[in-house]
Amino acid sequence: MIPSEDRALIEETIAAVRPLDEAAMRDAREHQARLTKPLGSLGALEEVPVRLAGLAGECPPPMPGPAAVAIFAADHGVHARGVSPWPQEVTAQMVANFLAGGAVVNAFAAQVGASVTVVDAGVAADLERAPGLLIRKVAHGTADITEGPAMTPDQAARSVAVGIEVARELVASGARCLLTGDMGIANTTASAALVAAFTGLPPEDVTGRGTGIDDATHARKVEVVRTALTRHGLLDREAADGDPLGALAAVGGLEHGALAGFILGAAALRVPLVLDGVIAGAAALVAAALAPRALDGCVAGHRSAEPGHSATVGHLGLRPLVDLELRLGEGTGALLALPLVQGAVRVFHEVATFDSAGVSAKRPDRDAARDATPRGPDPAR
Amino acid sequence: MIPSEDRALIEETIAAVRPLDEAAMRDAREHQARLTKPLGSLGALEEVPVRLAGLAGECPPPMPGPAAVAIFAADHGVHARGVSPWPQEVTAQMVANFLAGGAVVNAFAAQVGASVTVVDAGVAADLERAPGLLIRKVAHGTADITEGPAMTPDQAARSVAVGIEVARELVASGARCLLTGDMGIANTTASAALVAAFTGLPPEDVTGRGTGIDDATHARKVEVVRTALTRHGLLDREAADGDPLGALAAVGGLEHGALAGFILGAAALRVPLVLDGVIAGAAALVAAALAPRALDGCVAGHRSAEPGHSATVGHLGLRPLVDLELRLGEGTGALLALPLVQGAVRVFHEVATFDSAGVSAKRPDRDAARDATPRGPDPAR
Repeated sequence: MIPSEDRALIEETIAAVRPLDEAAMRDAREHQARLTKPLGSLGALEEVPVRLAGLAGECPPPMPGPAAVAIFAADHGVHARGVSPWPQEVTAQMVANFLAGGAVVNAFAAQVGASVTVVDAGVAADLERAPGLLIRKVAHGTADITEGPAMTPDQAARSVAVGIEVARELVASGARCLLTGDMGIANTTASAALVAAFTGLPPEDVTGRGTGIDDATHARKVEVVRTALTRHGLLDREAADGDPLGALAAVGGLEHGALAGFILGAAALRVPLVLDGVIAGAAALVAAALAPRALDGCVAGHRSAEPGHSATVGHLGLRPLVDLELRLGEGTGALLALPLVQGAVRVFHEVATFDSAGVSAKRPDRDAARDATPRGPDPAR
Repeated sequence: MIPSEDRALIEETIAAVRPLDEAAMRDAREHQARLTKPLGSLGALEEVPVRLAGLAGECPPPMPGPAAVAIFAADHGVHARGVSPWPQEVTAQMVANFLAGGAVVNAFAAQVGASVTVVDAGVAADLERAPGLLIRKVAHGTADITEGPAMTPDQAARSVAVGIEVARELVASGARCLLTGDMGIANTTASAALVAAFTGLPPEDVTGRGTGIDDATHARKVEVVRTALTRHGLLDREAADGDPLGALAAVGGLEHGALAGFILGAAALRVPLVLDGVIAGAAALVAAALAPRALDGCVAGHRSAEPGHSATVGHLGLRPLVDLELRLGEGTGALLALPLVQGAVRVFHEVATFDSAGVSAKRPDRDAARDATPRGPDPAR
């Protein structure tokens, strides 16, 4: 696709992101109150079917499935700055592992019945064609963000367009719930830079230890993020908000661009999307800056151990469902959340109402107080 | 069964609860380190397969399934003290709802592929026989704990024996993962009394709002718990620890007794068990006081919104997997956790090792530092 077509696709997709349907959400809240369970007793899960009803424009919302996780893989020029203890070739090796079914994301997907698609958005190595792999390589990795922009404006637009296209393809092939996945050695560094750029928080507050680094490497990683933000004029969040694709091009990754497009694509198609951790969160900040409504129908699958992720979900107003200090990526946190999302919606399809089941309703508390009146011999009490 | 047989069954079951197998746990930790994921990146989930390996005595541990949730239902004499806004007949009505498949526990069980068995351990109403219902009624509800003991010593022993028998029956019929469920209007009051008795915490710290009560009812509930603990000499936790069945008989519920037996039975059979919320937690305190190793192979499915539950899991040293402010009971929190437990074990069965997948290992951080050396023209750097 030529660059202007990528930009047209992005604009068309953003324009298709509409608000949630208020009437369907009202119906969902009313239905929630009639179900044979105390109101509020499902805690944070009660909001899920309400939002998905708003997304679908009907109550009950359709069951979120079949589910498909797309793992967007890419490499990062900033790896050369020594921000990760993993060799860069691990990105391509893990793609091979995903395709062979040998990674944690595969085990979790099998557990919850989701399909796995790997998308080469920008792996440094040339990958061989394989079933389950979509080769949509925008570049052989990004450039080092401390030396210049990660990608050109055209590459940034292309990466977003790739994500939109993958969302469309998966939905066209039957998926009715999309999950984000990612793979890219050093991508927590680019994520931290995006999170700092879009939230305005200082690098030291949002830069974590990724898959495990020591103090010296962590200190270097924070400095790398600060250097990149300074170089690209992104220390003030208004800069990123004013030009989200520019911020993406400056400090992001090709998988971040694709994930942002994937989120926009799902929102435009009104298909529920479950976000994984900090990589998806950083991409969600880009998507939300492009189309503020794009996250309305999304569920934050889990809270990552990365500090930048808590800042991100707070900024986006999302409540993660799973909170187990995972820091693996790949889509694993989103997959763990899927049965919770599906269970919450299933309640709307299968649970009886107080009327239909002949279950007595809760009484006003004053009646409970009456029970407590001391029983005496006086029948007139 | 005559009372002495119940006591013999309990003693035999307690004697069969053995420590976890250290060699299998060591194997599991070593295997964890070889899997193609950064060590520790599955956070709190990494401990699950290690414990289950210890329970099974082999690594990898068998997949925890087929899964069966047992919902122990019973009524509470303390309901007369005005501690709940729900009429007592809702216990029996909800049992009918479970058997008709119309409750949230049914929807969640269907979502995760677990069977549902309802056990009448002490519902006040006489229930009709029905598929999926085991009528093991110990009494028509307990007595009011503010006026006397909830049950006789024989009833307490019988209730525990019921739970052991149900665990045995479910495992005999093929279940390889047991989940606790419960139903009983006013059972958060009895739970608070048990939690206070076994943790030594004051009633106001462990008494919550159950399925939803106002300030006046809550204040009354706290006083009811305090009155019961005072009456039965349970304000000091040594009393409960010294005579766990006595504490159960004094302030517990028939479902608490059955759940304690269910936990002991699962531990004796070395079958993994997922605990639901505060009712199961209160029962787990009884089980742990009878057999301290009984919780070693258990997983805390979720953290309930009830304050007594956080105190309980802290006391038992358990880390709940799902934390979404659920306060429904029935087994719903345990069912939501099941795919997380199964996913964590599935990783051990299906994920490749670094060697087998040809994925490069993490390098020492000093090598990352070397990447960061400024690149200059001097080839001798």
